[in-house]
Amino acid sequence: MILVITPNPAVDVTYRVAEQRIGETQRVLDVARRPGGKGLNVGRVLHTAGASTRALLPLGGDAGRWIADALDEFGLAHTDVPLRGATRTTVTVVDDVAHPTMFGEPGPDVSADEWTAVAATIERALSDEPVDALVVSGSLPRGADPRVVATWVASARAHGVVSVVDCSGDALLAAAAAGATICKPNAAELLEATGAPDERSGALRLLEHGTAVVVVSRGADGIAAHTTDGVVSVPAVQGITGNPTGAGDAATAGLVLALVERHAPNAEHQGRAADLVDAAVLRSAAAYGAGAVLRPVAGEVDSAAVHRFLADPLLRPVTDPLHRPVPHPHDPSGSHA
Amino acid sequence: MILVITPNPAVDVTYRVAEQRIGETQRVLDVARRPGGKGLNVGRVLHTAGASTRALLPLGGDAGRWIADALDEFGLAHTDVPLRGATRTTVTVVDDVAHPTMFGEPGPDVSADEWTAVAATIERALSDEPVDALVVSGSLPRGADPRVVATWVASARAHGVVSVVDCSGDALLAAAAAGATICKPNAAELLEATGAPDERSGALRLLEHGTAVVVVSRGADGIAAHTTDGVVSVPAVQGITGNPTGAGDAATAGLVLALVERHAPNAEHQGRAADLVDAAVLRSAAAYGAGAVLRPVAGEVDSAAVHRFLADPLLRPVTDPLHRPVPHPHDPSGSHA
Repeated sequence: MILVITPNPAVDVTYRVAEQRIGETQRVLDVARRPGGKGLNVGRVLHTAGASTRALLPLGGDAGRWIADALDEFGLAHTDVPLRGATRTTVTVVDDVAHPTMFGEPGPDVSADEWTAVAATIERALSDEPVDALVVSGSLPRGADPRVVATWVASARAHGVVSVVDCSGDALLAAAAAGATICKPNAAELLEATGAPDERSGALRLLEHGTAVVVVSRGADGIAAHTTDGVVSVPAVQGITGNPTGAGDAATAGLVLALVERHAPNAEHQGRAADLVDAAVLRSAAAYGAGAVLRPVAGEVDSAAVHRFLADPLLRPVTDPLHRPVPHPHDPSGSHA
Repeated sequence: MILVITPNPAVDVTYRVAEQRIGETQRVLDVARRPGGKGLNVGRVLHTAGASTRALLPLGGDAGRWIADALDEFGLAHTDVPLRGATRTTVTVVDDVAHPTMFGEPGPDVSADEWTAVAATIERALSDEPVDALVVSGSLPRGADPRVVATWVASARAHGVVSVVDCSGDALLAAAAAGATICKPNAAELLEATGAPDERSGALRLLEHGTAVVVVSRGADGIAAHTTDGVVSVPAVQGITGNPTGAGDAATAGLVLALVERHAPNAEHQGRAADLVDAAVLRSAAAYGAGAVLRPVAGEVDSAAVHRFLADPLLRPVTDPLHRPVPHPHDPSGSHA
């Protein structure tokens, strides 16, 4: 089972209007509501791909109830940690003229005891049944201590479970320092969190912190896996146009699916996990990312297209012979070969 | 008791952002949620003024539940007619730079049997306890048959209860044709619904349809009551600046409060009701409207200011000696003197 944590879920509302204008009353022509937050996008793609998946998320208020109901309807198993505050809503306004405008609520104030309940629920889920991977995806609510992510990663490690963390800022650094198996920021998040001048330097900083692999989604430029030994990358599927929202989350799902498929649910030795993120795993990530671009909403993939992309010989890996070994914290030899 | 119907209630959400921009992700700095819809604004002002008030409204989905909870918390009695569809949300985006931008969802599809349930609930409320006035305020959901309003007005008439209708378009015409005691559009709605070139002509058309009095809120230009005999108007309170949203609804509340205060809850003879909308009643409407402008949110009034305005000698009535009598459908002599 893949356990997917969404620290700050949202009701994602999309309003279609004739033409966006500031300072006017705009008739909403069409309303779409869906459960949002990066982890829920990952979870929905995993569930659609047939993987045994459980979403774990703090939820509060009517918006939280709505998300729980929507996940039930979708068929995605979920464990909710009740919050006193109300789950946030995001409103995206779209037309056929301008770029979408997104209004993001800050999210509820989550108290220390509520975070403790989240950690306890994760620990219980890891104890109660065999978990193949723990995924943490998405931002923390405003004001949350980024170290909460470290406790979740530590729980996974204690249970010998691979962890994949797609967070930003201090939460990403905390996850790396706690020994997350894979940190998976996008290129901008990596530079922002580490303050590094380029991707490789940023990845090395996270590796120094303690993560085994840094997978960087580069959008149209493909996806790369950094270890202390070097970089493996695959190009993005070419000629794909559509909605890039949620493509990174689908790529995370594709990565985790390939990882879980091939290895025993045990990552006690982080070095082994590092070896596992090879070109085939990245191809799976790239194929799922492209499959998401073809769908108008986040959290969905065009499954037939994904299978086509997985067979695409153009998705061949590029191995960057960067040999700038740094001592790996969990394997001082720095060698995985 | 004053029964206030809100045909298309809403959760009114206000997002404050640093500066509105199209095509960008905007961080919401502050979120306010309140029960919305013109009738609920009227009901809240009536309740705050101490009048026995009951809101009657169709509600559905999580948004509907949220409104019911919020009304409970506010202390406003309400009778809800359950809908299969979900109650709408409106999102207003404000900053300190531009005019607010409002996104209005169309509202649920209300089925014929749900409208029948609304009518039956109104009929029951009118039968179960003494009702002093029936107020219908606000738009109908998209696709609703405007004649539903006529059935509510007819119920009020059958019980000898004064009805005050603040609707627009065909619903306003239907209410007038059903013999609503008072139609209370704003100036723009009056012209739009009747297609008349000026306020007096528009009012005469509604009077010809069958209403006894047409009260027109003119914003900063005051408020006027048209009967077949002529026009009485009072100026707006001068020197008031603030938030005009909801001022028309507070004016409706002020009108109804003054009406109910002075007359027995019986309007069998529409002509009598017409006489009752005199300058003092309009002053009450104008005072409450101004009291709402002083408050930052709709559905609230500055009560101390309202009492000051009610005593303001500048709110003196202007009687327009327009004597263009048309035969009143409920009083063929056309005379109410």
